[in-house]
Amino acid sequence: MYRLIIDLDTKKKIPLYKQIYEYIRMEIIEGKLPYKEQLPSTRSLAVQLQVSRSTVDLAYDQLVSEGYIEAKPCKGYFVSQVEELYDGRWKRENKAEEEESPHREEKKFTYDFAPNGIDMSCFPYNVWRKMTNQIMLDHEKELFQMGDPMGDLPLRQTIAKYLHSSRMVNCKAEQIVIGAGNDYLLMLLSKVLGEGQKIAMEDVTYKRAYDVLKSMNHRIFPVEMDKRGMDLSCLEETGAGIAYVMPAHQFPLGIVMPIGRRMELLQWALEKEERYIIEDDYDSEFRYKGKPIPALQAWDQHEKVIYMGTFSKSIAPAIRISYMVLPGRLLLRFKEVCSCYASTVSRIDQRILYDFMQGGHFERHLNKMRKRYKGKHDCFLTALKSFGEKITIWGENAGLHLLIQWKSKEAKEIIKKGEEAMIKLYSVTEAYIGQEKKYENMVIAGYGGLKEEEIVKGIQILKDALAM
Amino acid sequence: MYRLIIDLDTKKKIPLYKQIYEYIRMEIIEGKLPYKEQLPSTRSLAVQLQVSRSTVDLAYDQLVSEGYIEAKPCKGYFVSQVEELYDGRWKRENKAEEEESPHREEKKFTYDFAPNGIDMSCFPYNVWRKMTNQIMLDHEKELFQMGDPMGDLPLRQTIAKYLHSSRMVNCKAEQIVIGAGNDYLLMLLSKVLGEGQKIAMEDVTYKRAYDVLKSMNHRIFPVEMDKRGMDLSCLEETGAGIAYVMPAHQFPLGIVMPIGRRMELLQWALEKEERYIIEDDYDSEFRYKGKPIPALQAWDQHEKVIYMGTFSKSIAPAIRISYMVLPGRLLLRFKEVCSCYASTVSRIDQRILYDFMQGGHFERHLNKMRKRYKGKHDCFLTALKSFGEKITIWGENAGLHLLIQWKSKEAKEIIKKGEEAMIKLYSVTEAYIGQEKKYENMVIAGYGGLKEEEIVKGIQILKDALAM
Repeated sequence: MYRLIIDLDTKKKIPLYKQIYEYIRMEIIEGKLPYKEQLPSTRSLAVQLQVSRSTVDLAYDQLVSEGYIEAKPCKGYFVSQVEELYDGRWKRENKAEEEESPHREEKKFTYDFAPNGIDMSCFPYNVWRKMTNQIMLDHEKELFQMGDPMGDLPLRQTIAKYLHSSRMVNCKAEQIVIGAGNDYLLMLLSKVLGEGQKIAMEDVTYKRAYDVLKSMNHRIFPVEMDKRGMDLSCLEETGAGIAYVMPAHQFPLGIVMPIGRRMELLQWALEKEERYIIEDDYDSEFRYKGKPIPALQAWDQHEKVIYMGTFSKSIAPAIRISYMVLPGRLLLRFKEVCSCYASTVSRIDQRILYDFMQGGHFERHLNKMRKRYKGKHDCFLTALKSFGEKITIWGENAGLHLLIQWKSKEAKEIIKKGEEAMIKLYSVTEAYIGQEKKYENMVIAGYGGLKEEEIVKGIQILKDALAM
Repeated sequence: MYRLIIDLDTKKKIPLYKQIYEYIRMEIIEGKLPYKEQLPSTRSLAVQLQVSRSTVDLAYDQLVSEGYIEAKPCKGYFVSQVEELYDGRWKRENKAEEEESPHREEKKFTYDFAPNGIDMSCFPYNVWRKMTNQIMLDHEKELFQMGDPMGDLPLRQTIAKYLHSSRMVNCKAEQIVIGAGNDYLLMLLSKVLGEGQKIAMEDVTYKRAYDVLKSMNHRIFPVEMDKRGMDLSCLEETGAGIAYVMPAHQFPLGIVMPIGRRMELLQWALEKEERYIIEDDYDSEFRYKGKPIPALQAWDQHEKVIYMGTFSKSIAPAIRISYMVLPGRLLLRFKEVCSCYASTVSRIDQRILYDFMQGGHFERHLNKMRKRYKGKHDCFLTALKSFGEKITIWGENAGLHLLIQWKSKEAKEIIKKGEEAMIKLYSVTEAYIGQEKKYENMVIAGYGGLKEEEIVKGIQILKDALAM
């Protein structure tokens, strides 16, 4: 029998059983204790090492648990077959390296007219924080348990009411699916529709949705737009079964799809059973003139519209709560194919949002933001007046961005000169998904994340830069 | 020109412009104002209705925005082509119905031995709440902005350290992807691996993972297990390229994969470039004897193991934070194909968890829970002793459930009699994915969610019920 010469160090912090375990383990790994070799009995090893028998028992138990040795009844402990070690050795010193990841070289612009910028400066953080605190006092145990895969019903009921009153969307709470962001919901929707769908998208469009849908193995058909939105004869030609549109405020062009085109689109969907319309209502809360344009879904009598909305613009991108409204038939299919996915939004977050909406804070916040963004929007338009007849502006009166076209300058040049002056503007070409080139001379400029004085200064700097 | 006879009600709460807008809109919808009909000028309508011209302007603007009418320069306003209304009419009265969804008829058992039950009674809610509060004071603005799609780096660094010290997992923070639950991470992983993979899973296994992987269009091959875990010759026969295993504590059988089998499995993965092992380390935190079994990933020198873990068991299912560690090559692929998906975990939640771990609260909580669950585990085993030789117990010393087999009774009968006595036990058959039937006489009994006295009483009631 193999004699174990273990040098126990009673001063070490490591428990004695672990020292024994580790010693034997290394002996086996290094092949010094070969397969089938018998180990000393726990009693004799305890005597030899002058430790209690239970210490040796613990060490042997651990070795048995991990499969290094085997216990044969009435015979003793034997080394298991482990010598063919993967790659021959165990990296003793492979610590998780704690290097900082190299910081991405992000150019810092003085004023960044990012189209996805939002203004968080008057978000009611105090309210949100107090609610969070209260919720965790009142509902702690319940909220740490698993919830409904589609989202908790009270929040879905509140969203249904909100959608009805603000967007004229017709739905029951049961049709609403809550998920951690639009990307995730598009992944779920892809499962519901089945992969490999032919999906028509406006060209130009929201590139992120395009990327996600493409990544879910759908075939995407870019469809030309006229000034009323997606061109329906082009849509028909593609043979697509699903149309992804942004009727309330197309991104990036800012087109509002007029009622006539909406009716034609719904008619298109009606013609074949498997046709659907995905309505992305991403920033419909912000309209600065008149009342909001109702959702396309509001006109849908035949369950043809999948309505998608988000709190990314109206509250904050970081809260990761979006929702979609599924027509009845797709709802059944969702239950069939998606019930295996647990909800991606924590119940605490769902509850905070519920309280925030129920307490009227969401509406107040929206009203405040609408005013604030309108201020920025108006200020931006005023600042742009200094360009006089040199520019044309598109997509005003809604959303958080404008499109600007210089009559005698190319967008590329504008953006380049802007960048040199540390002013960041964006190119429509980033929203291209097809062959369409007719908007390439437009510049996208978001104002949501900038203060009014920053907008004014930014435009002033840009103007000076272009004059040079 | 059409004469509009609008009966304005100045006492109504509805603004005058809206009343005008609504009247004209309905006239168009109902076909009374036909296509191409010219509307009165804003000036003449204002005079007629005795309202300010800006009121009429607002109404007309809204109608133009929504596409009901068109403005022709120097000519006036004309009705657009909208008469072919979708389904002929507009449902004036379609309110979102606010019915409560019918409550699911869930049988309430006196004692539910659910294998996914956890004990939240000593969760440090106060600490969590205070941290949440503090975080929202300190980091509010920053945390409401969009974060890294893979999760925020500080949290990933903390998880990397934790995995190294507790599970001997070797990884850099950069390899970690944080997501809202294992289901979601498996969806992402499916994108990374490519759909239609051949995936081998232990039969029996964690059914939820099976459902998710199946839903992602992979072909799943059930592989028989022996007492050391997945049978490798069976694995080889399937032709699968990916093996999904739970080496630390197989669900539901509780098998610890011994070192020898682990090496063989790693060797299997090495044989072909495209082979990978998914290690689901779902409840490895809870081991009641000796020290934790290191992760399989700890032995992986060739980037063959995709390690997955979750805070569902160690904190709470509702917090929706899981993580996976991607080998280098898959990490590159992740960045190619998944960078379009925004993170599904809110940055606030990520920051709370970060503070919770950094402050040592996670470790303390784990230690407390390990003791508590060990108490329940021991208490359960003691209670089961009253069955004497009639039963065999499997999968003890780890996790939050046991397997019990009655020698002369079928599992079906036990479960049925238990249910009649309001004691809920679970069948292994729910974990079947293939033809395997050899475990069908085992009963799964979780103890995580029950108090010690409930475990004792539950077993007593079960015993009485079986004696009848």
